[in-house]
Amino acid sequence: MLMNPRGFASDNNAGIHPAILDAIIQANTGHTLAYGDDPYTSKAKEILRRHFGEDSEAFFVVNGTGANVLGISAIAGSYQAVICAATAHIECDECGAPEKFTGCKLQTVASADGKIDPSMLAGSLLGVGFEHHVQPRVISISQATEMGTVYRIPEIKELAAFAHANNLLLHMDGARIANAAVSLNCSFREMTSDAGVDVLSFGGTKNGLQYGEAVIFLKPGLAENFKYIRKQGMQLISKMRFIGAQYIPYLEKEIWKSNAIHANRMAQLLREKVTGLPGVTITQSVEANGVFAIIPEKVIKPLQEKYFFYMWNEEKSEVRWMTSFDTREEDIEDFTETLKKLLRN
Amino acid sequence: MLMNPRGFASDNNAGIHPAILDAIIQANTGHTLAYGDDPYTSKAKEILRRHFGEDSEAFFVVNGTGANVLGISAIAGSYQAVICAATAHIECDECGAPEKFTGCKLQTVASADGKIDPSMLAGSLLGVGFEHHVQPRVISISQATEMGTVYRIPEIKELAAFAHANNLLLHMDGARIANAAVSLNCSFREMTSDAGVDVLSFGGTKNGLQYGEAVIFLKPGLAENFKYIRKQGMQLISKMRFIGAQYIPYLEKEIWKSNAIHANRMAQLLREKVTGLPGVTITQSVEANGVFAIIPEKVIKPLQEKYFFYMWNEEKSEVRWMTSFDTREEDIEDFTETLKKLLRN
Amino acid sequence: MLMNPRGFASDNNAGIHPAILDAIIQANTGHTLAYGDDPYTSKAKEILRRHFGEDSEAFFVVNGTGANVLGISAIAGSYQAVICAATAHIECDECGAPEKFTGCKLQTVASADGKIDPSMLAGSLLGVGFEHHVQPRVISISQATEMGTVYRIPEIKELAAFAHANNLLLHMDGARIANAAVSLNCSFREMTSDAGVDVLSFGGTKNGLQYGEAVIFLKPGLAENFKYIRKQGMQLISKMRFIGAQYIPYLEKEIWKSNAIHANRMAQLLREKVTGLPGVTITQSVEANGVFAIIPEKVIKPLQEKYFFYMWNEEKSEVRWMTSFDTREEDIEDFTETLKKLLRN
Amino acid sequence: MLMNPRGFASDNNAGIHPAILDAIIQANTGHTLAYGDDPYTSKAKEILRRHFGEDSEAFFVVNGTGANVLGISAIAGSYQAVICAATAHIECDECGAPEKFTGCKLQTVASADGKIDPSMLAGSLLGVGFEHHVQPRVISISQATEMGTVYRIPEIKELAAFAHANNLLLHMDGARIANAAVSLNCSFREMTSDAGVDVLSFGGTKNGLQYGEAVIFLKPGLAENFKYIRKQGMQLISKMRFIGAQYIPYLEKEIWKSNAIHANRMAQLLREKVTGLPGVTITQSVEANGVFAIIPEKVIKPLQEKYFFYMWNEEKSEVRWMTSFDTREEDIEDFTETLKKLLRN
Repeated sequence: MLMNPRGFASDNNAGIHPAILDAIIQANTGHTLAYGDDPYTSKAKEILRRHFGEDSEAFFVVNGTGANVLGISAIAGSYQAVICAATAHIECDECGAPEKFTGCKLQTVASADGKIDPSMLAGSLLGVGFEHHVQPRVISISQATEMGTVYRIPEIKELAAFAHANNLLLHMDGARIANAAVSLNCSFREMTSDAGVDVLSFGGTKNGLQYGEAVIFLKPGLAENFKYIRKQGMQLISKMRFIGAQYIPYLEKEIWKSNAIHANRMAQLLREKVTGLPGVTITQSVEANGVFAIIPEKVIKPLQEKYFFYMWNEEKSEVRWMTSFDTREEDIEDFTETLKKLLRN
Repeated sequence: MLMNPRGFASDNNAGIHPAILDAIIQANTGHTLAYGDDPYTSKAKEILRRHFGEDSEAFFVVNGTGANVLGISAIAGSYQAVICAATAHIECDECGAPEKFTGCKLQTVASADGKIDPSMLAGSLLGVGFEHHVQPRVISISQATEMGTVYRIPEIKELAAFAHANNLLLHMDGARIANAAVSLNCSFREMTSDAGVDVLSFGGTKNGLQYGEAVIFLKPGLAENFKYIRKQGMQLISKMRFIGAQYIPYLEKEIWKSNAIHANRMAQLLREKVTGLPGVTITQSVEANGVFAIIPEKVIKPLQEKYFFYMWNEEKSEVRWMTSFDTREEDIEDFTETLKKLLRN
Repeated sequence: MLMNPRGFASDNNAGIHPAILDAIIQANTGHTLAYGDDPYTSKAKEILRRHFGEDSEAFFVVNGTGANVLGISAIAGSYQAVICAATAHIECDECGAPEKFTGCKLQTVASADGKIDPSMLAGSLLGVGFEHHVQPRVISISQATEMGTVYRIPEIKELAAFAHANNLLLHMDGARIANAAVSLNCSFREMTSDAGVDVLSFGGTKNGLQYGEAVIFLKPGLAENFKYIRKQGMQLISKMRFIGAQYIPYLEKEIWKSNAIHANRMAQLLREKVTGLPGVTITQSVEANGVFAIIPEKVIKPLQEKYFFYMWNEEKSEVRWMTSFDTREEDIEDFTETLKKLLRN
Repeated sequence: MLMNPRGFASDNNAGIHPAILDAIIQANTGHTLAYGDDPYTSKAKEILRRHFGEDSEAFFVVNGTGANVLGISAIAGSYQAVICAATAHIECDECGAPEKFTGCKLQTVASADGKIDPSMLAGSLLGVGFEHHVQPRVISISQATEMGTVYRIPEIKELAAFAHANNLLLHMDGARIANAAVSLNCSFREMTSDAGVDVLSFGGTKNGLQYGEAVIFLKPGLAENFKYIRKQGMQLISKMRFIGAQYIPYLEKEIWKSNAIHANRMAQLLREKVTGLPGVTITQSVEANGVFAIIPEKVIKPLQEKYFFYMWNEEKSEVRWMTSFDTREEDIEDFTETLKKLLRN
């Protein structure tokens, strides 16, 4: 029932890291209270608090879209706006879930590398106090970005300072937060709580978990009503222990780190291997686990047949290759050999 | 990290049936496309089609609230109403998720046993065509009900006929559909597609799955836009193969049936054991895996300390005991002995 | 182009009081800023502040449904619930607008006379803090009620005390607030701000205005974001001066009072005239401008042909007769004569 | 209580045309059924049907935002997208009402003159059928645009053809439809029904009405549930006769035409008068009743003190001057003299 053992389509196409699966198996014993009132969830939340600080509070949800939408919903009224890069997942890949659930308008900022900075945001503040305009309330950034780039800590701090100076909050979509942290060689906390982030979607599914993300409120007071928002947002799962059980080894055994280090390293390897090939241009700085490249149009289809991946920009013949925790050196070897062969034809 | 091995609080407190967990483990190999474009999901959907008929179409979602809300969203406009029993899960236990996501009003009908019948619904049809009133569109029933009772097939047919005669659709919350099917000793299809149900929430989590329910449209044309509704409704999970993988043995190996037979049998055993005890009154017909009983107030706390369960109606001193696929005869034996001892004091 | 000069269908069927129309005519000169930044609106808001107290703030909206829905939206999150009588306008006559816009569930309380009191509300507080349940947040009462009855000031105070003791807010739908005030012979303030009401829909259209109601926040802090809610709620009108212009004479010349006194008096006259007629039973205490009566079924149609009014409860042959500011004694005289004649046949 | 007799801030700042006010006065007699079941509304709807064709159906709502949002709501599901110019009223000036009520995402297209054409829309069709993306459903254009420009009939036809070829519908925000019609010297119908528009917001308030716009469905089948949408959308007004009464003379006496001809002519006069003044650059083609100009920053404040108008683009020192049905030649004369004087200093 399988496709090619390991492709480069998405880090979501990988399975569960063995140590995580083992934790699920171990947790499958007897009864525990449902909906998060179980010891696995408590422990996982406690570990997250150690990572993000005493003022933080984590809530497990099911998936990344749920984490983003509900996290934003907790901090923005429907007449407010969320500012994000035009490439943001919340803008491009959530089928309008943010608008539907929060009522907010998403105001996008064009960005070549998926990152935004305060100099791009002046226009978003026009109309503050004017009732005909949506009111800016949230700046949402992705770390790592959808373009495989990573915000440096001072960049995050600058955005947070800009946000707070303008009565905005800073939201981080951390679907690939582990890849970003190892890229910067920093702790989660240095990049989030300590950098001024207010609300975080903490992702793990793209990095070896089966399912289950966390919405983490990094400032006191923000989480007050979130348990109701989560339930009304259909993101409260009954057998929650199996999310908690995954997070315990993920954090305690630093699987998040080893997985992300590996995936990032594979992306670097891939970048190295294809750099300089005729007709191949790397289009984004490779800082996490994604490689963006323009390649000759004629090689795309045949290459996809062996290793599936997505077209990113048809017009430019730009493709996206994602590596994951289970990508092997030989996959990259074989992939680049296949590519070379196709380029020669 | 465990509570009492097996309590009677909820069938959600149980874990994963071993054969289901094994299927998850087996599916954890290599890459597959995410978001349901994988062979496990395809196969599981195909098996569901065999169960529910050629005109049916199944979509996996994450949880029961998601299944109910999105299924209703697919068939009702925001100015329409959903008629349900006052005890319905959609009314009592989803924190207003139906209203928030669909915009619909829920119109409740008082019902002693959790079931509704057409004779109760005349009032709901007043105001049809009158723009100041919400327009009735959906009758939603739970099978089995939240009160542990089960609709007979002719009762469902009668409701469907009533619904269709009045331009309404019939929705079934099948969070415990397996318990209902074995209670009636019928196939899923006889109780749903063949009985006139239009949309079904097909639940498995309360009967041995880890997570993952299905919204099943039983008539052609209803599912047309559902893939977008599911995504916008935050219920599309990335590593979908692990839902599909559970459903394959659940259906093919009839785990749904053996689990539900067992849970129902345990409820009967419990009913038998407590019937006739001094101060104990069974308040609902025991037809699935729940037992409702009035017991002396003084015994509730101490009994809960050993075997946790929920108070149902504090005023009446009525409690709810749920059995599950992993309840053992000795659990019931010990539970009733404990109860007897408490009653004697 | 007219129907019968004056029927008893609804106080909405009347036109504009001449002094109000005159104010509109007078305001129709030159340019003023749109959307409420005009001197008429300022003056009207100032007068309302004098009526309701220094801590109050009024916002003009278009209609009663808008006033109710947006006022509630300002004080309740989507996971919260609004408790109201089963006969409330927000429940029965707004086509689900409250649910659609606020996301809240409406929890209804059965009430024979349209009034609720704390003794009916114990059940609504179950589930506080339990995330599966909507959280009670608002008690909404109608003054006068849809059944033509009026809350006494101590009754309002008792509801407000109950609300505030339970972390709820008290909302009043004052679509017929003038009729209630003259019925109680009190000021608006005694019945609202001073009685503990938090948010008020202040209606005028049923009492001689052309259109335009006010949402009045009676406590500091509640109105903070309301200007955005009003705009996003589509209730901000451009040529606002024509709402403000109506309110100035309505309040300054006490047209609200003279109109309501007249309408209420006409209802009393009607009640007197029909009391004792064979087959006629007054079913509600006549305290404002509505008379509810059971009358023989056979007379309803012919009576409606001369004076249109609405059937209230077909089963009981109960009808509703509304009087308005322009009802004349001779209308009632002729109406009751017609009724008598029909009863004799 | 007045500002300067006539400014150039907005056509919304003008009052009611005398003939319209007279119609309101005439309609203020006796009782009529509320909520649109009155002869004035019937007649006005009938006249609109004559203008827009037998297949059209008009519904009166309160204001332009309501007309746009509810019209779109009738033709688009929440997971769909509305494509519009980045300058569109629905995007910039409705405080997120479209997102909040419809759930749709607005996808904006950059446009220098406020108009869009099919060549700009290719990007909007990417992702059709892909569940992670909102699905394009509506193209919304403003006629006249917010930039004072007007779509030519062939341009509308081309957009309609493009829309229908791609399973989209064409919505027109006609807040200034009269100004556009007289600019093109065509009938409403030639520019809408006959050009392929599906749904129209027909505005009158900016052209001499007191309040009240119409949502006009130009194809059969689209209006089916609109009466419920309007009520749930809080846009159904009780004393509807006063909207209908305005529309009768507005259309029958062609007040729409004479008012718009005048306003447009005043804009041309203004354009002529300021063209060539030192430091003054007209930035948009003057095709309706708005004039956009860059003027020296230092003259803006003093000029606004005498004749209020809005800054359009602070960075560019661009301002917007709107004329209206009641602008007088001497207003323009005096305004331009004042401007000249300021420019000389």
